Amino acid sequence: MGNSIGRMFTITSFGESHGSCVGIVIDGCPAGLPITAEEIQSEVDRRRPETGIGTPRAETDIVEILSGVFNDKTTGAPICLLIQNRDVDSSEYERIRYLPRPGHADYTAWVKYGGFNDYRGGGRFSGRITATFVMAGAVARKALAQIGIEVLAHTVEIGGVTARTVTADEIGTNVNKNPVRCADLEAAEKMLDAIDRARKEGNSIGGVVEGLALNVPVGLGEPVFDTVEGELAKALFAIPAVKGVEFGAGFGAARKKGSENNDPFTVRNGKIFTVTNNAGGILGGISSGMPVVVRVAVKPTPSISQSQQTVNLETMTNAALTIRGRHDTCIVPRAVVVVEAIMAVTLCDLALRAQILPRVIK
Amino acid sequence: MGNSIGRMFTITSFGESHGSCVGIVIDGCPAGLPITAEEIQSEVDRRRPETGIGTPRAETDIVEILSGVFNDKTTGAPICLLIQNRDVDSSEYERIRYLPRPGHADYTAWVKYGGFNDYRGGGRFSGRITATFVMAGAVARKALAQIGIEVLAHTVEIGGVTARTVTADEIGTNVNKNPVRCADLEAAEKMLDAIDRARKEGNSIGGVVEGLALNVPVGLGEPVFDTVEGELAKALFAIPAVKGVEFGAGFGAARKKGSENNDPFTVRNGKIFTVTNNAGGILGGISSGMPVVVRVAVKPTPSISQSQQTVNLETMTNAALTIRGRHDTCIVPRAVVVVEAIMAVTLCDLALRAQILPRVIK
Amino acid sequence: MGNSIGRMFTITSFGESHGSCVGIVIDGCPAGLPITAEEIQSEVDRRRPETGIGTPRAETDIVEILSGVFNDKTTGAPICLLIQNRDVDSSEYERIRYLPRPGHADYTAWVKYGGFNDYRGGGRFSGRITATFVMAGAVARKALAQIGIEVLAHTVEIGGVTARTVTADEIGTNVNKNPVRCADLEAAEKMLDAIDRARKEGNSIGGVVEGLALNVPVGLGEPVFDTVEGELAKALFAIPAVKGVEFGAGFGAARKKGSENNDPFTVRNGKIFTVTNNAGGILGGISSGMPVVVRVAVKPTPSISQSQQTVNLETMTNAALTIRGRHDTCIVPRAVVVVEAIMAVTLCDLALRAQILPRVIK
Amino acid sequence: MGNSIGRMFTITSFGESHGSCVGIVIDGCPAGLPITAEEIQSEVDRRRPETGIGTPRAETDIVEILSGVFNDKTTGAPICLLIQNRDVDSSEYERIRYLPRPGHADYTAWVKYGGFNDYRGGGRFSGRITATFVMAGAVARKALAQIGIEVLAHTVEIGGVTARTVTADEIGTNVNKNPVRCADLEAAEKMLDAIDRARKEGNSIGGVVEGLALNVPVGLGEPVFDTVEGELAKALFAIPAVKGVEFGAGFGAARKKGSENNDPFTVRNGKIFTVTNNAGGILGGISSGMPVVVRVAVKPTPSISQSQQTVNLETMTNAALTIRGRHDTCIVPRAVVVVEAIMAVTLCDLALRAQILPRVIK
Repeated sequence: MGNSIGRMFTITSFGESHGSCVGIVIDGCPAGLPITAEEIQSEVDRRRPETGIGTPRAETDIVEILSGVFNDKTTGAPICLLIQNRDVDSSEYERIRYLPRPGHADYTAWVKYGGFNDYRGGGRFSGRITATFVMAGAVARKALAQIGIEVLAHTVEIGGVTARTVTADEIGTNVNKNPVRCADLEAAEKMLDAIDRARKEGNSIGGVVEGLALNVPVGLGEPVFDTVEGELAKALFAIPAVKGVEFGAGFGAARKKGSENNDPFTVRNGKIFTVTNNAGGILGGISSGMPVVVRVAVKPTPSISQSQQTVNLETMTNAALTIRGRHDTCIVPRAVVVVEAIMAVTLCDLALRAQILPRVIK
Repeated sequence: MGNSIGRMFTITSFGESHGSCVGIVIDGCPAGLPITAEEIQSEVDRRRPETGIGTPRAETDIVEILSGVFNDKTTGAPICLLIQNRDVDSSEYERIRYLPRPGHADYTAWVKYGGFNDYRGGGRFSGRITATFVMAGAVARKALAQIGIEVLAHTVEIGGVTARTVTADEIGTNVNKNPVRCADLEAAEKMLDAIDRARKEGNSIGGVVEGLALNVPVGLGEPVFDTVEGELAKALFAIPAVKGVEFGAGFGAARKKGSENNDPFTVRNGKIFTVTNNAGGILGGISSGMPVVVRVAVKPTPSISQSQQTVNLETMTNAALTIRGRHDTCIVPRAVVVVEAIMAVTLCDLALRAQILPRVIK
Repeated sequence: MGNSIGRMFTITSFGESHGSCVGIVIDGCPAGLPITAEEIQSEVDRRRPETGIGTPRAETDIVEILSGVFNDKTTGAPICLLIQNRDVDSSEYERIRYLPRPGHADYTAWVKYGGFNDYRGGGRFSGRITATFVMAGAVARKALAQIGIEVLAHTVEIGGVTARTVTADEIGTNVNKNPVRCADLEAAEKMLDAIDRARKEGNSIGGVVEGLALNVPVGLGEPVFDTVEGELAKALFAIPAVKGVEFGAGFGAARKKGSENNDPFTVRNGKIFTVTNNAGGILGGISSGMPVVVRVAVKPTPSISQSQQTVNLETMTNAALTIRGRHDTCIVPRAVVVVEAIMAVTLCDLALRAQILPRVIK
Repeated sequence: MGNSIGRMFTITSFGESHGSCVGIVIDGCPAGLPITAEEIQSEVDRRRPETGIGTPRAETDIVEILSGVFNDKTTGAPICLLIQNRDVDSSEYERIRYLPRPGHADYTAWVKYGGFNDYRGGGRFSGRITATFVMAGAVARKALAQIGIEVLAHTVEIGGVTARTVTADEIGTNVNKNPVRCADLEAAEKMLDAIDRARKEGNSIGGVVEGLALNVPVGLGEPVFDTVEGELAKALFAIPAVKGVEFGAGFGAARKKGSENNDPFTVRNGKIFTVTNNAGGILGGISSGMPVVVRVAVKPTPSISQSQQTVNLETMTNAALTIRGRHDTCIVPRAVVVVEAIMAVTLCDLALRAQILPRVIK
């Protein structure tokens, strides 16, 4: 339960880290949308860890389209996308089966599912599941592109190093130029250093990713509960390690006065804008026509190689745990791709509900 | 669309600020739960603004139970709760009908609903709608109490003034002793001063509310999408003015190392705990048995009495706007009550799904 | 739980037969739709029993619009519609509280809700709940009318008396001319006789209602589960006493050969039709452009004045039961109005999903 | 959209007749349920056409478990089940691409999906999709067995030949003894003859399937909309060719008097029963503890080899169509297996909602 999201553009994720595959079913995608496995593949490839930052797990991650696409166009039927798991080594996980890793879902999943959950590689709770979001996101981005909406994300903080404010153009130009996916190239260097230091001490670090949606028309979002903020936040919290979500000025707005935080309206060329965008493109839960701006806090990945204190679930005694195996020192750069995907999926759903995205692409 | 939330404990909100009433239907509440209008009334009364902080609108806000309760117990049928609007003066809103207030939903609602939305008093987008959440929350809290779960919230920041760290006991003792609902009584004084200064300059200020859920058993939350974080966040963003939500260490976790942020497990009296609670009581989207801790950023209420820049929607020209009428200088203390309500409703839904809360209370 | 239906046009029913009111919340109705309490009232009035056929309960049934309508137009916000219960006499139900009436929900509700259900007048299971469907249907019909869709129903069988085949025009002309709402006026007379005979022997009789939706464009329905048939059937089974639903040739199709049952396609004036309509206007779960035709079997109302065998839930012994009080001899004519309402609500939902009905009526 | 059903036990179907596969994702299955691919396979094998009755398409139909099962037990994670399509020949469908087959979804799908639907073999509208229901049903049956619920179905009518009334024991004993799956062995012979005659004239015939659920406890079903009838009916209409659904006495109840149709209650060995079961085990939308009895009307399969009248969608002119290729003369016997599956899936969902089926099987 809980593995589907979206009312009109619904995605259902399945698969485990060390099972046979991970996959996703997209139901409600407009018919007639041109899409190929290669396009989806290129998004999935972007999620792969860069050398020296992420996990050495060498997944080839080949995307297969199982249904819903015919003659390279969507048919209106559910689209099933699959990645076979290939580079799987579960031996480590047998060893630590009863030693829940701090900061991981091992303990809570064990209780909730009565010990029947697939514990290998974190099973259903692995970051690997986000590959399924990225596949769905690739389709959603293509659909949004039909109505001019563009989604992009970038790293704005890693290990305490913050990027300067950048333009959307800088993001487009710089993000793929550096392994941390930061549009401020100077900060990117410092972030890399911070990651390097953390890796050397067997530790991990977190950061903040910012996502933007450009050219979103006024009218997405269905208050009071299905707001743009609410729907995006819920979906973004499906990314393991995300512990905070804020829009526009976000927590900073809590320290502003109304006169500072309110975005004044203005007319330019017969169109209405706001002079500033502290609202992050959302007023009353509805998109305002300004860029939708969201930031997510990514905690340091809990897998570290230092010894940690845990318990033995069989003996119910305290125990020490040292995790071996492969893991990322900093997953923030990979999260950038996932944030884009989740944003695209959510906005696609809201655009269909608002009848801004048609059911058939002509 | 979008006015319902919850899969097993579903609430549907209706009503407008200056219409005849605001109300809520609760569907899925366990049968046999003792509840009276007085109990719900006392929660709604807590939401009322304190003298000198909030709006002078003198709502009497009398709760009526229209259905679903028989002999002071829930029947298993949908519960409709209603508050008639009494102290309504819409004259001001006719004047500013085509002058969208910066920071409000006036403009986006006008576009989305083709100008047919009820603009009086913000209509459906008024903070008054949160009274419906509070009614549902009163019922949900009563249900959660059957399984020992307690929800409480407090102000941790207003206008830049932050409270010191407090215990759950201090919250219980102190929150209702001061009008800003802050458990740090010294900080409370400073917060009151900040509100006073803002009011005098015709401005508004925001802040941060922290919510806690105690005695939550392991196992609430349905990953990957219906996580405790995701469900709580979506619901909390239904509170107007909330622009950020974080759990446990939240955005602070982004600046920590894995070795600092991971909460070590330990066994005490045959039960498993974590030594720290940076996870905010949630691991892998599932409750861990530790207190669930969430913080929400509340922006300064957009209604200020200073002159602001806006546009005239009829003439499509720039315009100046001075809002008269009644509004809160700081809604943070009132948001405390609403956060508690939203948390209770969401946890009730998740507890029913996890079959931790029964369908019939014996 | 289970008191809402519809994905984009969602209705949530509440209230009990002998509580303070019955009501419904409509969420997702297009904005800008002209609607008045009088229009809804006139539909509700049609549901009232005709003299000599139905219950003598003299409900005045005055419709109140609590929200979602402003200046006689829908606003896009949820619409709450209410009818206060006035003519309530619960004394009889105290007497038979532990004597479940055969054919009624008394026993199953008592078990399911642990004895906490409101048993007075059938509580939530009373036919009176269908008044809430009729209110929602009145709004839905108005919305459908904007895109030319018309819904109508008529009695085709009562107590074994069947009506001859009639045209849509005959239905329009004749249904409101006779108390059984049968378009075949000769059959109507015989049906009235049958009802009369049943009443005299303290018995009840059932029948069949046929519903039609005209001018439904091709494309409503979302296979494989949210088909036109599936969505209509689910909603129609919410009418107490409905025990069967069939489309087009229905159960009769089971006795036909493919060559007889297949509806040949033909082109006329550049438009595609089928020569016959055994499919009931639905192919593959999607509307075909032909009239949508559905028939529902209405069982005889279980409330009869003859003595019946039941059990005493307190003593767990067999018991005899004679129901006093007010009840219909035949509810089929009243069901006609409810079938129309349910059809309208369901088609409205499907039309919004198919983007055939816009979110704003200009 | 519309390819998922179930609130707590949710199935999402995907795949096309002539695509690479058909599959289903089950979300919400209790953890700890023992299940193997072989068990699912044996259900799928039962759906295969018997020699001389069904299509000669020689699908091997090998079931693969892609996720959600670990060490032969369900994990609580979504279960993806897949059947690769092997014996696919689409040449015929290219020929008739613009000639919609009467009684099929070709025309409506073409309009709804703008001509982008996969038309080969009926694509998403093929009876082959029901193989995905059968896979889900195999899992659901296993889950229901944990709480003693048993689901079974049998043919009660084919081509106008009706079976006599049979006991549940006779169904269990006889259904798998004859290719039409009829528990009345004499009628079975006549049904076979009827099928034989229809095949010889290039025609097809329909029939009626009855489904039973035994040992269903009191309390499943969530009125007013999510009734046992409503949920079963909606799900059953997902079976292509089903045009009618009735419960208990069904349409026959419309011809009975209340005194005949009401099922008297009685106490036997301290338990409450009804003497008759005209209600089909459902009162007020809630299971009564008596067997749940449903009958579905299956239209004659529209694929016949006789020449039929249709239109050419390219030229918009009338046209004659003769379908070649492989198709069933009578799909009723295969529908028996699908009805069982759909019933199991639906009851599993309702049992989880009623908390009668636990989230973890110990």
